Amino acid sequence: MPLGQRVGDKSDSRYCGVETEFDYDMPQVLTFNLSGGFDFVMAPLIDPSYRPSSVKKEADGSSVLPAAASDLILSPSQWSSHVVGKISSWIDLDSEDEELRLDSEITLKQEIAWASHLSLQACLLPPPRTASCGNYARCVNQILQGVNNMQLWLRVPLEKSELMDDDSVNAKNDLQSGRMFDAWELWNSFRLLCEHHTQLCAAVDILSTLPSVNSLARWFGEPVRAAIVHTNSFLTNAKGYPCLSKRHQKLIMGFFNHSVQIVISGSLVHNVSQEGYEDLSSNSNDNHIEDMPGQHLLRPYLDYVAYLYQRMDPLPEQERFELGYRDFLQSPLQPLMDNLEAQTYETFEKDTVKYNQYQRAICKALLDRVPDEEALTTRTVLMVVGAGRGPLVRASLQAAEETGRKLKVYAVEKNPNAVVTLHSLIKLEGWEAIVSIVSSDMRCWDAPERADIVVSELLGSFGDNELSPECLDGAQRFLKPDGISIPSSYTSFIEPVTAAKLYNDVKSHRDLAHFETAYVVKLHRIARLAPSQPLFSFKHPEYSAKKSNQRYKKLHFEIPLDTGSAMVHGFAGYFDATLYRDVHLGIEPSMATPNMFSWFPIFFPLRTPLYVPRGSPIEVHFWRCCASAKVWYEWCVTSPSPSPVHNSNGRSYWVGL
Amino acid sequence: MPLGQRVGDKSDSRYCGVETEFDYDMPQVLTFNLSGGFDFVMAPLIDPSYRPSSVKKEADGSSVLPAAASDLILSPSQWSSHVVGKISSWIDLDSEDEELRLDSEITLKQEIAWASHLSLQACLLPPPRTASCGNYARCVNQILQGVNNMQLWLRVPLEKSELMDDDSVNAKNDLQSGRMFDAWELWNSFRLLCEHHTQLCAAVDILSTLPSVNSLARWFGEPVRAAIVHTNSFLTNAKGYPCLSKRHQKLIMGFFNHSVQIVISGSLVHNVSQEGYEDLSSNSNDNHIEDMPGQHLLRPYLDYVAYLYQRMDPLPEQERFELGYRDFLQSPLQPLMDNLEAQTYETFEKDTVKYNQYQRAICKALLDRVPDEEALTTRTVLMVVGAGRGPLVRASLQAAEETGRKLKVYAVEKNPNAVVTLHSLIKLEGWEAIVSIVSSDMRCWDAPERADIVVSELLGSFGDNELSPECLDGAQRFLKPDGISIPSSYTSFIEPVTAAKLYNDVKSHRDLAHFETAYVVKLHRIARLAPSQPLFSFKHPEYSAKKSNQRYKKLHFEIPLDTGSAMVHGFAGYFDATLYRDVHLGIEPSMATPNMFSWFPIFFPLRTPLYVPRGSPIEVHFWRCCASAKVWYEWCVTSPSPSPVHNSNGRSYWVGL
Repeated sequence: MPLGQRVGDKSDSRYCGVETEFDYDMPQVLTFNLSGGFDFVMAPLIDPSYRPSSVKKEADGSSVLPAAASDLILSPSQWSSHVVGKISSWIDLDSEDEELRLDSEITLKQEIAWASHLSLQACLLPPPRTASCGNYARCVNQILQGVNNMQLWLRVPLEKSELMDDDSVNAKNDLQSGRMFDAWELWNSFRLLCEHHTQLCAAVDILSTLPSVNSLARWFGEPVRAAIVHTNSFLTNAKGYPCLSKRHQKLIMGFFNHSVQIVISGSLVHNVSQEGYEDLSSNSNDNHIEDMPGQHLLRPYLDYVAYLYQRMDPLPEQERFELGYRDFLQSPLQPLMDNLEAQTYETFEKDTVKYNQYQRAICKALLDRVPDEEALTTRTVLMVVGAGRGPLVRASLQAAEETGRKLKVYAVEKNPNAVVTLHSLIKLEGWEAIVSIVSSDMRCWDAPERADIVVSELLGSFGDNELSPECLDGAQRFLKPDGISIPSSYTSFIEPVTAAKLYNDVKSHRDLAHFETAYVVKLHRIARLAPSQPLFSFKHPEYSAKKSNQRYKKLHFEIPLDTGSAMVHGFAGYFDATLYRDVHLGIEPSMATPNMFSWFPIFFPLRTPLYVPRGSPIEVHFWRCCASAKVWYEWCVTSPSPSPVHNSNGRSYWVGL
Repeated sequence: MPLGQRVGDKSDSRYCGVETEFDYDMPQVLTFNLSGGFDFVMAPLIDPSYRPSSVKKEADGSSVLPAAASDLILSPSQWSSHVVGKISSWIDLDSEDEELRLDSEITLKQEIAWASHLSLQACLLPPPRTASCGNYARCVNQILQGVNNMQLWLRVPLEKSELMDDDSVNAKNDLQSGRMFDAWELWNSFRLLCEHHTQLCAAVDILSTLPSVNSLARWFGEPVRAAIVHTNSFLTNAKGYPCLSKRHQKLIMGFFNHSVQIVISGSLVHNVSQEGYEDLSSNSNDNHIEDMPGQHLLRPYLDYVAYLYQRMDPLPEQERFELGYRDFLQSPLQPLMDNLEAQTYETFEKDTVKYNQYQRAICKALLDRVPDEEALTTRTVLMVVGAGRGPLVRASLQAAEETGRKLKVYAVEKNPNAVVTLHSLIKLEGWEAIVSIVSSDMRCWDAPERADIVVSELLGSFGDNELSPECLDGAQRFLKPDGISIPSSYTSFIEPVTAAKLYNDVKSHRDLAHFETAYVVKLHRIARLAPSQPLFSFKHPEYSAKKSNQRYKKLHFEIPLDTGSAMVHGFAGYFDATLYRDVHLGIEPSMATPNMFSWFPIFFPLRTPLYVPRGSPIEVHFWRCCASAKVWYEWCVTSPSPSPVHNSNGRSYWVGL
């Protein structure tokens, strides 16, 4: 039974599971827990007392795995919808004891094969016992090469780490001496050994204490599928019912928002007296199946989790609309080389917030340009360059009306298809006397007069990435020397992110070119590791003698010490533009224009994910390179360890002029 | 004029160059220096006072590069054989001064383009000025994408590094604070940014003091093309002539042995009085061309270098024979699946050292087996399993003769083609009464009696890699319970190495499989970073109940602190075998059997070269995995940073059973 209905939420986080002990009567386990309100069980599949090496000695060659139930006992859909297989937790593939190691390897392979036979969706792997888990990872990696669609969830305890709360120099030494405090490091080593395999996921244990907020945030960039909340991590409220600390609540909400399923684990440790229940001491270790009428012993915990789920705000309409775009990589537009389609214009024109900002900027420019006393006599020449189907023409005319200024508008557009729509718009609105349509590329248009104001919307997610600088250089020819460009300047921003999902999507193409391409993407399953920093700035008009649209910048990022070590899969990119004076527009997270949807961020991947040890600064270089027919970016990291220079000579990704 | 004749040496290290200043009269520069005894000049191609930004301001669009000479002044072969272009040393692509940075980039591209037009074989790039050389590397990387066959030699000063001689903890902190003492780090960052491009090489400056021996040794694994020896690094001998310190001499010899050319740089700083020479003060800064009769001013240095070259021992015959195999990757044999060719038998049979060791071992075994008093009455049953064309049969019979023991020999061979040769050998030698030929695979042969001694030569470069364990398990069936196997045990060894050449050769295949394959290779241009360690051991016979040929081992390597940081491109592998008692055979460098040539080492590459910071231990895991039809290795690194597990499930490389 899902936790509740949340408008727009179709994710797995609606389902809540429960961890159970081994029982040969699996149907009973399932019935008991499903009727108790849980959606699935996380259950051992094989008797935990089983050891392959002992079997060999006893049996006569006809040994049978001591499974919890044969495949026929439950229907295939019951197995696959309601059971996550829990691999025997006694296994230790990195033990010094060779017999235990070999038994563990055989058991792991047998259990996974059995789970696979049952078509389970996932199996839970016990946490690695030591930081050096090479043999465990090797064995899981072998399994991953051959497994069907089943996911393997590596269990990782989110223990409170001394390291994360202690920024003394000793912390570093402890790490070097081989002690590893940070569970994320374990996960990271394991998944690197398994090459970021898409079916290797994480299941985190939530205990009574939590590591620092920053260190937890890293997990939102990782493929976490389940958060296993232990009953003893719950507090007790005034009425004796379980509840969670604010920090725990916030974490659980974060998981809900990232499609992570909650699993309740442990025994009833809250003295909740209820009808039909015998009073259980808090020492009771028994969440076993018993033929007991009434409520599931762990129901109070489930109820509380459901309460948290139901308490969340519904997803805003815009978010719901964008759900399908979350973490979905798109190639950036090439609006100069290609003509946009009607659908694209349609979408962008709906962004009223954006055009309101433009209108505000134009108003201010008109008022600055024409004093009140000249309002009736002076006609401002305004050119919309890249007019598309006319939204900026409309915003300009509205600004003129609002301010009582007179306008002459040139609407310059290179796409002949858009010009058709523009014509009908002008006719329909009766703007023929004010607006002249120019079907031409602004870079070569021979303007009949000079403009007071040039208005454009040529910005991409990364500001200059759709070649606004080059286009506006062309338009600057017909701007009066004291004329105004709207936007008057713009700046790109980058920040390092963990984004395992995006990395795997890029990798799935199995070529170099996709790793050297920037993508437009609605970032969701990412961890932002350090505040973004400004990269390239352009202003318009630009009359400097040494004017060039080439750029080079080196940036240093410091990841907070309490984050711990981190993995950088690439850089998220944004822009912020000043339209005019104090009117800005942008998507840089700390100052993004609210409710604007025209731009998703951009993502620059790294060919090899960059491991950043705790406290190490990141040094990254970005170049904007220009040649006669194209513009491209190159990027690389030089600290903590050098990467190759990406996209040399624009070999993989460029924007055509 | 080459430095001398050294039998077998056809490498470039016979040629010695000289670094010269800029001069517009290039033919004169060349004539002067070639007639002075040098083989080539390392000369600036463009007037060093030239700056693109100043030219732009002056010129009317018809600017001409101020080149040292037009392409017509020298013949194409003169340009390409005798001139290494020296890129202007004023360039600084990572300067904070943007104009200087842009001028530098333009100049670098113009000069390389000019050198390329002249078909020069190489250009010398000035050393990076700072540790953070991202923009310089990006620009060189762009050039490398488009350049013809020309090499770019990055100049790197081999300065005495405080870091290398000081193993205090402070050293580490200094590194982290951004100060970089170790020139190799500069080189390493630069070439990582340029993705190990094959045309990016190093030219090292030899100065009066040298870094530690271990840190210098790293360069033998790198593509060093020239060692630029400065005149002030020479000492003065009793007669006033220049000479080099013992350490310098040893380094120069090392370079000679690794095809590195010497270039003399600087002015005459030794007061060598000679006929026809005016006496020059040691302050003289003038090694310019002057129309001076007699000897080149730097001739004493050249003479000394030639003396060092000529003093070297000639290459031994075996080394000369193996020259063509140096650093040439070969796939290991699959002697079980494939039958060897006659040529292969022929080569291996010539290794008299190996068969002498076998004969010694068999002698000892026969003496142990049969006391003198039974020598005439007891006939020892000896089986040669994998007899090939008979070399071990011969060794056995010689051992019998030497010890006066009586033998009955079974020669078991699965290759029917080899059996043909074996038949004629036995007939020719008249051994019919003693030797029975068995045309069968030892793993399924139904032996008519049991053997006292089983002799085999099934070892590969890595010991067990040609499946000796599996074959001898098969043969063990027909060994007497107290019988002897020769070899009685063997062990594989690995050690981490720098091997840029091998890495690039593997990479050139542009696929994963080649990075997950082991290669047999005569290792030469490598740096051995730490002593080898034993990996997997097998002994024969093996009667243990838990017998398995699967193996897993985790090893820790410590690179000496005075090496500094290092790059691991993979692991060199060797074996050592105990044939019988104290008679061993092997290629592990510290105890290799001298003058044996049957085995080259094996090389396990890493998909991504592993950067090992100074003082960081390396943790590496190797597995020997067995399935019904194949045996394979998997390997990975877990420290200092985890690699993927290589060759999972033997997907890329395996040995067929």
